[in-house]
Parts: sequence; C-alpha cells; structure tokens
Amino acid sequence: MSVALEFPASAQPADKVPLSFGLVLYPGFQALDVFGPLDALNVLSFLYPIKLYVLAETLDPVSTKSPQGLEHPGSAFSQSIVPTHTFDTAPKVDVLIVPGGVGNRPPNDVGSAIAYIRRVYPEAQYLFTVCTGSGMAAQAGVLDGKKATTNKAAFKRISGYRPQVEWVGKARWVVDGNAWTAAGVSAGIDAIFDFIKVVYGEDVASLIANFMEYERHLDPSWDPYAELHGVQ
Amino acid sequence: MSVALEFPASAQPADKVPLSFGLVLYPGFQALDVFGPLDALNVLSFLYPIKLYVLAETLDPVSTKSPQGLEHPGSAFSQSIVPTHTFDTAPKVDVLIVPGGVGNRPPNDVGSAIAYIRRVYPEAQYLFTVCTGSGMAAQAGVLDGKKATTNKAAFKRISGYRPQVEWVGKARWVVDGNAWTAAGVSAGIDAIFDFIKVVYGEDVASLIANFMEYERHLDPSWDPYAELHGVQ
Repeated sequence: MSVALEFPASAQPADKVPLSFGLVLYPGFQALDVFGPLDALNVLSFLYPIKLYVLAETLDPVSTKSPQGLEHPGSAFSQSIVPTHTFDTAPKVDVLIVPGGVGNRPPNDVGSAIAYIRRVYPEAQYLFTVCTGSGMAAQAGVLDGKKATTNKAAFKRISGYRPQVEWVGKARWVVDGNAWTAAGVSAGIDAIFDFIKVVYGEDVASLIANFMEYERHLDPSWDPYAELHGVQ
Repeated sequence: MSVALEFPASAQPADKVPLSFGLVLYPGFQALDVFGPLDALNVLSFLYPIKLYVLAETLDPVSTKSPQGLEHPGSAFSQSIVPTHTFDTAPKVDVLIVPGGVGNRPPNDVGSAIAYIRRVYPEAQYLFTVCTGSGMAAQAGVLDGKKATTNKAAFKRISGYRPQVEWVGKARWVVDGNAWTAAGVSAGIDAIFDFIKVVYGEDVASLIANFMEYERHLDPSWDPYAELHGVQ
C-alpha cells in the first residue's frame, strides 16, 4: 500500500466527530469481526487524531482460539492480540466496538464484557457491533427497543437472548439511532464504511475503501445469507 | 457465528494438503492483509489439523503502527499481535504468507523478513502474498520469472524493485505455479478463497465463505483499482 491520503474538503472537521474507540475483546473472538472494521479505522487514523483502546478482562493477550477447543483436535491455529486496558481501567470511549465469535457462546462466560458494555453505553456516542457481538450488546440491555441484526447462522440463538430487541432477519447491517449492528463476520466491513460515511463523510469512506481496494456493499438490505441460513 | 461445519465429501483429505502456515510479520503491517486471509484459515482449522506460526524478527508483539509515524500526529490507533516464533526459530512451513503494509516502505528495514523468505521458499509448498507483500517476495528473488501483482496505489514502486518479475497491472490476484499474489489489502480475501478452492476444494471454499457471509470476487481479472490508480 501507499500513503497519499488527502483530507477531503467535504469531510467533517475533527472537532465534530468521535475520536476515541473502545474495542471489546474476549477469548475466541472472530478475527475478521475485529480487523475488517479496524483496518478501515487504521486508515482513518491517517486523517483524524483518533485513539483506540483495546479492552479485555485482563491485560493478557487475547486469542482467537475457541475456549472449548472447537477447532480440529490437531489444529494449533490462532492469533493473539495485546490489550491496552482492562474493562476496569478503560478511558471514556466515544465509539464502542463489539465483535462476535465462538467465544461468546455458552458455556463461555463473557459477563465482564457484557457488564462493561452496559456500564459505558450511556456515555458513548455510538455502538458498533459485528456478527454475534450484537447478542452481547442485547444481553447488556442496550439494544432494547432498537432494530438490530446479527450473524445469520446464529440468528435463532442470538435473537432469543432478548425479545425486547427488534431483530431484523434480512440485513447486511442495521442502523437505529446511534447503534450500527452488522450481520456475520465480513458484514462488519460494509457496516464500518456506512458508519464512516454517516459520521465522517462519504468522501472519507470512499477514499478509505479505494485505499483498501474494497468494493462496498452499499445496500443494507442485501443479504443472501438470511435465506441460506433459513432466517425469515 | 455458529459452528456447524461438516467436512465436505468432495474435500481433499488431510494427508494430501499443506498443513503448516507461516505468517511473516513486521512493524507497520496492514491489519486486513493479515486478518482477511487468516480469518478464512481460522475457519479452515475447524476442518483440517493445521498449524500457524506467527513469525517476526523478535518475540515482541508486532504493531500495525507505521514506524515513521505516518498517521495523524494526534492518533494513537494500532493493534499488536504476539509472534509464536522468530525468523530464526521458525519450524518448517508448507505455506508462507507475506502481508503488505507501510512498514515495508523505505527507509524501514525489513531485511530480516526478506532473508527469511529467501531462505525458506525453496522448502515451502506455496507462497501467498497480499498487497505490497509481493514486493518483499520479489526482493527475496523468489518471484523471478513469475507473473505477480501487488497493491495498485504502490504498483510503480513495487514493480520497480525487481524487473525479473512479470508484473501484472490489472488483476485482483495472480497465480503462477505455487505463488498466489493478491492486489491491495482486501484482495487478500478473494485470493485466499481461490487458494483454498484450488488446494482444499471448492466445497471447502464456499463453506467457509458462507460462514463468513463473504461474497467472493471469483474473476481474478476483476480490478477497477488498476484504472483508478493509473496502472496499465
């Protein structure tokens, strides 16, 4: 890649936009749920003075490996990310990012992450979830009364967590008020570009997408995976 | 996400496929260059007994932050990955993965990574590069006489490193013999699915893509970014 990013004239000025991001991590998170959106935000950090806090229960590196060892028994294939803060020491964040992953499925305990989401959501400007991350936000109660979506293969389980949420079956992503919820895994990339478009400006979103050579899905109702996974 | 992956009847058996992967990391790597392909391979690890070695010059966590601080001066926005081995202690790998990123641009020194690529390529079964990672493989001399592509915004610089490579301007990815080279950043996702299709089987590739809710680009000549960045 090359870095020759010019700040678009039409972009929102830095004093009008959210500048701090908190990423909620837990063992068994899905890598692309995190790094699709973060790659776009990493590029955004060339244009805006933004900060990322990588948050977990402790400061130990957090692995993509599923806590129950759901991988093939002969596999040893994971990546570990270093947190910058714990849920207890996290600075205030403007945008709360919650990824999905097998690690948030029972019997795994992601209670500390859910408690953190519940605690800080009222102070945050935006919530951004990917995949089954919306199930954690729902369990925190912060999606009550809102439209939201999730991973389509896990739709039945996730939507059962919290009937107070208006679950949308067929959607690449859903925006309701300050909450963006993306469908499964790669949908987080399309959703983050929608977030960037709405919050920082379309020229910023298209600049970053072209930098990443990424063809965005622009229609939030595009979702062949709902039907594929039998979601109404 | 949900995990209900059934091994496809048509898939290559585990004793016929590469099982060990080495990821070459260096400071200032591009996150999605790494985690697009790795997310698909993480899912592959549910089906096959595969191993990943995360390799760097030392065992210190490796950050996405650009070594020259090319980000906005007010930004503090990066992620750090924990290596499992150094280039000197790496076990033998079947598939060598080389991501791009601003960290491989001069005046940064990625000589130890390039030396590692040069040393182990003859023993590896496959080479897989994303974005400007092909520039590092080219500098290692292992793409000589092969067709290859790279990031389109950086095409002129990268293709100038090594005229012995047959650089292809308009391509989402290129396969020549045992070498897959992807275009910029997100192209690595399409290229890894092509790699999985060819090596493990199309049913494996489509199973994983559906799991990730990812719509693949299937045509390796699809590349609007070549024209966008003025590449012939």
